[in-house]
Amino acid sequence: MPTKIILDCDPGHDDAIALLLAWGSSEIDLVAVTTVGGNQTIEKVTRNALSIARIAGIAGIPFARGAAHPLLRPVEVAGEIHGDSGLDGPVLPEPTLELDPRHAAQLIIDTVMAAEPGEITLVPTGPLTNIALALRLEPAIVDRVREVVLMGGGAHLGNWSAVAEFNIVVDPEAAAIVFEAGWPVTMVGLDLTHQALATDDVVAAIRAIGTGPARFADEVMDFFASSYKEVQGFEHPPVHDPCAVAYVIDPTIVRAVPAPIVVEMRGEHTLGMTVVDLRGPAPAGTRTKVALELDHARFWALVIDAIRNLGDPALS
Amino acid sequence: MPTKIILDCDPGHDDAIALLLAWGSSEIDLVAVTTVGGNQTIEKVTRNALSIARIAGIAGIPFARGAAHPLLRPVEVAGEIHGDSGLDGPVLPEPTLELDPRHAAQLIIDTVMAAEPGEITLVPTGPLTNIALALRLEPAIVDRVREVVLMGGGAHLGNWSAVAEFNIVVDPEAAAIVFEAGWPVTMVGLDLTHQALATDDVVAAIRAIGTGPARFADEVMDFFASSYKEVQGFEHPPVHDPCAVAYVIDPTIVRAVPAPIVVEMRGEHTLGMTVVDLRGPAPAGTRTKVALELDHARFWALVIDAIRNLGDPALS
Amino acid sequence: MPTKIILDCDPGHDDAIALLLAWGSSEIDLVAVTTVGGNQTIEKVTRNALSIARIAGIAGIPFARGAAHPLLRPVEVAGEIHGDSGLDGPVLPEPTLELDPRHAAQLIIDTVMAAEPGEITLVPTGPLTNIALALRLEPAIVDRVREVVLMGGGAHLGNWSAVAEFNIVVDPEAAAIVFEAGWPVTMVGLDLTHQALATDDVVAAIRAIGTGPARFADEVMDFFASSYKEVQGFEHPPVHDPCAVAYVIDPTIVRAVPAPIVVEMRGEHTLGMTVVDLRGPAPAGTRTKVALELDHARFWALVIDAIRNLGDPALS
Amino acid sequence: MPTKIILDCDPGHDDAIALLLAWGSSEIDLVAVTTVGGNQTIEKVTRNALSIARIAGIAGIPFARGAAHPLLRPVEVAGEIHGDSGLDGPVLPEPTLELDPRHAAQLIIDTVMAAEPGEITLVPTGPLTNIALALRLEPAIVDRVREVVLMGGGAHLGNWSAVAEFNIVVDPEAAAIVFEAGWPVTMVGLDLTHQALATDDVVAAIRAIGTGPARFADEVMDFFASSYKEVQGFEHPPVHDPCAVAYVIDPTIVRAVPAPIVVEMRGEHTLGMTVVDLRGPAPAGTRTKVALELDHARFWALVIDAIRNLGDPALS
Repeated sequence: MPTKIILDCDPGHDDAIALLLAWGSSEIDLVAVTTVGGNQTIEKVTRNALSIARIAGIAGIPFARGAAHPLLRPVEVAGEIHGDSGLDGPVLPEPTLELDPRHAAQLIIDTVMAAEPGEITLVPTGPLTNIALALRLEPAIVDRVREVVLMGGGAHLGNWSAVAEFNIVVDPEAAAIVFEAGWPVTMVGLDLTHQALATDDVVAAIRAIGTGPARFADEVMDFFASSYKEVQGFEHPPVHDPCAVAYVIDPTIVRAVPAPIVVEMRGEHTLGMTVVDLRGPAPAGTRTKVALELDHARFWALVIDAIRNLGDPALS
Repeated sequence: MPTKIILDCDPGHDDAIALLLAWGSSEIDLVAVTTVGGNQTIEKVTRNALSIARIAGIAGIPFARGAAHPLLRPVEVAGEIHGDSGLDGPVLPEPTLELDPRHAAQLIIDTVMAAEPGEITLVPTGPLTNIALALRLEPAIVDRVREVVLMGGGAHLGNWSAVAEFNIVVDPEAAAIVFEAGWPVTMVGLDLTHQALATDDVVAAIRAIGTGPARFADEVMDFFASSYKEVQGFEHPPVHDPCAVAYVIDPTIVRAVPAPIVVEMRGEHTLGMTVVDLRGPAPAGTRTKVALELDHARFWALVIDAIRNLGDPALS
Repeated sequence: MPTKIILDCDPGHDDAIALLLAWGSSEIDLVAVTTVGGNQTIEKVTRNALSIARIAGIAGIPFARGAAHPLLRPVEVAGEIHGDSGLDGPVLPEPTLELDPRHAAQLIIDTVMAAEPGEITLVPTGPLTNIALALRLEPAIVDRVREVVLMGGGAHLGNWSAVAEFNIVVDPEAAAIVFEAGWPVTMVGLDLTHQALATDDVVAAIRAIGTGPARFADEVMDFFASSYKEVQGFEHPPVHDPCAVAYVIDPTIVRAVPAPIVVEMRGEHTLGMTVVDLRGPAPAGTRTKVALELDHARFWALVIDAIRNLGDPALS
Repeated sequence: MPTKIILDCDPGHDDAIALLLAWGSSEIDLVAVTTVGGNQTIEKVTRNALSIARIAGIAGIPFARGAAHPLLRPVEVAGEIHGDSGLDGPVLPEPTLELDPRHAAQLIIDTVMAAEPGEITLVPTGPLTNIALALRLEPAIVDRVREVVLMGGGAHLGNWSAVAEFNIVVDPEAAAIVFEAGWPVTMVGLDLTHQALATDDVVAAIRAIGTGPARFADEVMDFFASSYKEVQGFEHPPVHDPCAVAYVIDPTIVRAVPAPIVVEMRGEHTLGMTVVDLRGPAPAGTRTKVALELDHARFWALVIDAIRNLGDPALS
């Protein structure tokens, strides 16, 4: 039976691929999509999410707009990576879906509380503001969510500072709330996602599919490749967000180990660092895991397969 | 025309008096009551609010339960001041009102957004968690609220630490969000409320009214007096929360001056301090005010008058 | 018997008056003068100290240069108050005294350790860097010093920020070391020194003395008055530093109360605040005191008397 | 020509080996030894240093006692690793050397200022308190020291917390002062020293030497091995401190790369972390280096050779 997930995202190029993977995989039952200010402002990423839905033929599930603003810190976006629109590169169609009237946090709460305990997995691929708000508005979701599999952080790597990753550092307080909530959290961070490089063979295989979603994915990765080369010196871009979805589809493609993880909220040089204690075996009762190693071939096979499954939806 | 207010409270002895004042004053149109974990847990203060409603004959307006937990910090209550129930002293009747199904933050948002711009004044007398959540869920309320008149903080006094007041220090991040939101905020803090002492003549005047609400107020103040004598060495208890309501009724009974106010979130010895800059005239555009001086006689006259106005509601 | 003091200063206009008071008072045995970077750089304040020595006829005691740099923070000076030289206004004579070759911290250590226990009082009127260094180099001074009477901090007032005073905020870590050392500390802060205003009658009385030191004091206060009027809006300047010396001469001119005092080293808005807990009687064993009220007339009488005592030293 | 070094240490088992290496190597001219509270209290480590001097026949150079106490934090020792004496295991001879009367910081200053610019290398293998004090007492040493090669910190590893190493975390403020001073600093941290394992062949080779110093080294490593097995689960103990000395002797046995390094002083979970920015090539002007890879065989060859060179000094 496919796993029911809510994808909480800020598209974003790699979020776009995550959406294609989630909707195209037969192992995932995507029950809702929520957006959060991150890679770009909430207006832009919400519009992008709806455009992607049209491209991928996503329908019949609610999309809700979420937090415009981190819990405490000022809004910070990743324009130099994702461009001014948050999804520069491809030409995006006008959205046709209507947004759900609820706030993303409320949609998450309603969906989780209406489902069976252990039925819904949350997959956040942006800042954790919506998830933190949902936790504070309805603490009972902690015991009903199956697992949180999030893209963010890193044990030994940073990108927004020497030791912090963007999704965590732009809202470290939200991240701390999510990591400390007591539910199972798997951190799919930079240690893993810097292994999810869109190498030439990967890009070629996607291009060869020849459908609308595949062309879109190709254009997305093309722009992403230039950004990452220019800004961070990567030869091939790390496609972060679908790693979290892929882990839900098949945890065996990732080596993840239990370890205590806390988020630094006060450090002068370490703000937003996800501090992972890998000094010894994790204490009994540790509910946080860190993803360390990726099976590159099997990961990309999942993505390519999902894009193929999407077929060629009419831009109705 | 009476001022429409939402009272966001954590009853709490002085919150109880604030509720009586708000419902009994002809200058106030109490449109909703929301509760927040503070003086006691959210379950206890919510039950207390409903019991007070029955005593005071409050009906026809929604009551909604709010945050159980501060944004980031662990739950901390004021049991040594308010007792185990949060309202020890009087025997409380079983509540008869039903709670609104919405979260307090949502009720605040819906009420503010449905009203005219500038129509609703928020009067928080507990930790600012609900108001902060409302701000993050719906930033548009900033421009529609008339003013926030809150009980909390202090320019030169602390009670929970040398320099911090309970309502602020238990959720300093929420307080920071509220003070920095950009709307007008009047801080009715300890500088003022330590002047709102329930002196013997005040207590006698209330007792003399002879109604149910007056008897309740008398018992409330009696317990509060013993707490404050024992814990903080006060001869007469400072009845904080109605000061904020009284300021809305008649700002001329308070001397409040514009001054920049920020909340300290990181200090080791100053956590939750409301830092008020009184070194010179406030810069142009300052939207925060600090209340410094109270007209004791006129303040208590408002309270006594309101309790009298409540009459003697049947405990229907 | 006069009290032996080491004056650790950063002249500075009010430091200059403190030096005149210490050397001119028959109740003080000034055994050493040390300098510390503060109102201006260590080079400038050291030169100023030596010039003042020449003006006041101070001789036969060591002067030593101390810390150029706060323990952790960058150098910050008070140029807008004390001018570019640190003692703008009067024309200063070339120094004739030679500096002791030791670092100020070492001179303090040597002097304290060579004296009887309880013989030496430290009177710092600048940042506490030298005293902190001395404590870390020779912890045994804690038990041998009689008392530390320092100018700095404030219970309810700030000047360099809303709640912090210059001497403390420029080196809060040094201040924390000094306040927590365990020796008796009397904090003569802004609460007191803002009462030590150089009113017109005071200035007139000093001018009337007619000696070199008096002319110098007059010029010092004249410049100080303009600075304080322009920068902080004072009608008459608060002459901070001699208050600490005056308290050593005659503690009865000051009302000082025991109270726990700690220094905030981490606050975002409260860095360098001296947090004084005045909520109740100080716990047994409290060794810190805060000065709250000054007898203005008797204070200035001490200063005027001391300046007169200096006579008219030849600028040898 | 051998490199002149001052070894600033807190013996400590691995400090003991560092001392043997420094005194026994023909490439090192050990000009002074200073001690600092760290692995144990200043009294214990100072006594240990003098005992080691007797065992190794170190004579003709000054030994000075340094800081008992970190700059700001409370004293913390590593009793579970080094035992109650700081050097449990071997039976230590009574010291025969007399301590220099100066504080370690003063001895460092005097030695550096008396030498030619660029002549002296500082090799701290304990907390950096003495070096920081020396910097604050005499800022001119920055431009006269050739290099600081310190054992402490780590880019990706911690031992006293998930991300912090003992020498840094017990006095993070001192470490920050040293890293930010502007002189060249090479950080020989856990990334490197966890490669300097005392494997069985190493221990056998040392034992085979058969002299007093070799027997002592054998006993030292024997105790160290049990501590590290028990407390941190190491099969062979990492012998940290001699790595810094070895780097001075022959930098080619270590791969060290330039990288910005800062010390975290405020983090809640990251206090004392040495934050190394390895995201790209170090900016021009970077004067800090991090040691990443050790040539295990050549490192131990240096140590064994040095112990052999010490011969068999009479315990005069």
